[in-house]
Amino acid sequence: VVLPTGEVFDDLRKLKKDNTGYDLKNLFVGAEGTLGIVTAAVLKLFPKPKGREVAFAGLSSPQAALEFFGRAEELAGNSLTAFELIGRTPLEFALKHIPGLTRPLQGDLPWYLLIEVSSGRSAEDAKNLIEQVLTAGLDTGLVGDAVIAASLAQAAAFWKLRDELSDAQKPEGGSIKHDISVPVASIPAFIEQGAQVAEKVSKGARVVCFGHMGDGNLHYNISQPVGADKEAYLALYPVMNKAVHDLARSFGGSISAEHGIGQLKRDELIATAPPVAIDLMRRVKAAFDPAGIMNPGKVI
Amino acid sequence: VVLPTGEVFDDLRKLKKDNTGYDLKNLFVGAEGTLGIVTAAVLKLFPKPKGREVAFAGLSSPQAALEFFGRAEELAGNSLTAFELIGRTPLEFALKHIPGLTRPLQGDLPWYLLIEVSSGRSAEDAKNLIEQVLTAGLDTGLVGDAVIAASLAQAAAFWKLRDELSDAQKPEGGSIKHDISVPVASIPAFIEQGAQVAEKVSKGARVVCFGHMGDGNLHYNISQPVGADKEAYLALYPVMNKAVHDLARSFGGSISAEHGIGQLKRDELIATAPPVAIDLMRRVKAAFDPAGIMNPGKVI
Repeated sequence: VVLPTGEVFDDLRKLKKDNTGYDLKNLFVGAEGTLGIVTAAVLKLFPKPKGREVAFAGLSSPQAALEFFGRAEELAGNSLTAFELIGRTPLEFALKHIPGLTRPLQGDLPWYLLIEVSSGRSAEDAKNLIEQVLTAGLDTGLVGDAVIAASLAQAAAFWKLRDELSDAQKPEGGSIKHDISVPVASIPAFIEQGAQVAEKVSKGARVVCFGHMGDGNLHYNISQPVGADKEAYLALYPVMNKAVHDLARSFGGSISAEHGIGQLKRDELIATAPPVAIDLMRRVKAAFDPAGIMNPGKVI
Repeated sequence: VVLPTGEVFDDLRKLKKDNTGYDLKNLFVGAEGTLGIVTAAVLKLFPKPKGREVAFAGLSSPQAALEFFGRAEELAGNSLTAFELIGRTPLEFALKHIPGLTRPLQGDLPWYLLIEVSSGRSAEDAKNLIEQVLTAGLDTGLVGDAVIAASLAQAAAFWKLRDELSDAQKPEGGSIKHDISVPVASIPAFIEQGAQVAEKVSKGARVVCFGHMGDGNLHYNISQPVGADKEAYLALYPVMNKAVHDLARSFGGSISAEHGIGQLKRDELIATAPPVAIDLMRRVKAAFDPAGIMNPGKVI
């Protein structure tokens, strides 16, 4: 890390265990350059998995997805490398607007999962694992229907569908975006109450909910009502943000799971985080960068 | 965390992803109470493994143990829950001094491993995994001999042997202890050079080397030469510490992998850590605890 003084703090160590003084490294990680500029990092590499299987499943509710997640984690452990929750609305947007996508499952289920299992042992092990996981889901009735990608091409197609969900929202008009996380167990309640919150702010607004279920992290975007005026809808941005973020906070959640604070969420962080936390962050900032020259105006 | 002001910093969140400002939590973790007193924590629980297998293996060298570790990790991944390296000297000390222990392997190999595999899938899976791991070790010649615990009692006996290594040193006279870590790949070179370093400080001193190989963390203790005067040997404590710690540092290692700094290693940390790091730690300390009332005299 290059510090405001021009000095270099070098912590490029390859240790798994080190208890020598304060953990400065994690203070710089995620500080968005406001304490110093990270110019190098040590990475741990893992071998490429020997087997990888991708499946698409349909379910009746986020609650079923949560229970199924617990079962899948129990069966596959760290081999469960993706568990992506996808609502019906983003799925339909993608199938409508992105050329070349195919509907993975027929039937009329409101929630979907893209599941990936990776095995360091063998291709056969990955295949057995994903079959065990899906069988457990189907046998318990948590999963309504499921399909395992029959080829690398189909696996790629499932992932393409997931990757296009964000772009597929654009033709549907204005979108008010959120990058929230809540405890994994609170995902169903957040989704249920989130729909009410969004409806209250904008009648007919369409919740586009998808995300990394295993991380408790949802890309919770709200598309404008069909036929609404885009500008008028986007004028609701701060009101919708506040409503959704208040809901996330009520679950002990985060208003920035992945993307950071920057300047967009700075005032909100300062207004809503515990004053003690903001005070400590400001003391760190003042101690490291008393002249305030590092990425000024960001984070705090 | 209760702060020096009496205020409480509450970060009891159950989130897997959160990017809202500075990571204060990891600053308090490992600060040994010098920034505030941690009074509560959130823990993530994992289900008890469905299967667990313990094995004891003999090898010709730490280099063979390192190569075998890579193979075992590749095969068992996160199911590899222990990979404890044990030198011949601590093994013999334990068999000599601790009542009720049995030699796990005959033959005359200089290095040993206690290996544990845990499976969240099934008991059979754990059994298959440990057999695969040991077969890979034996087939490649990295492992000279190995035995899988045939019962829970035998598994407990293997662990008891490991757990008693520290106590078994006491009847052998004075011991100069180190809690070092190095990059996992540097373990063999550290052990080879460590023996020379110890011999140079005290001719005939006996290296008692054991530890968590997968963590790069060795309990690297040096017992006095046979028949030496204990007090005279222990007078070498600072010289031996410096020699071993210098060696660990030369590999980018840590002089405190597990146990922290306290007051014992404070002066050494301040003298040997990069001045920039010490300066940053002192700025954090001054920012959080300007009156210096939290665990004074410790860490920095």
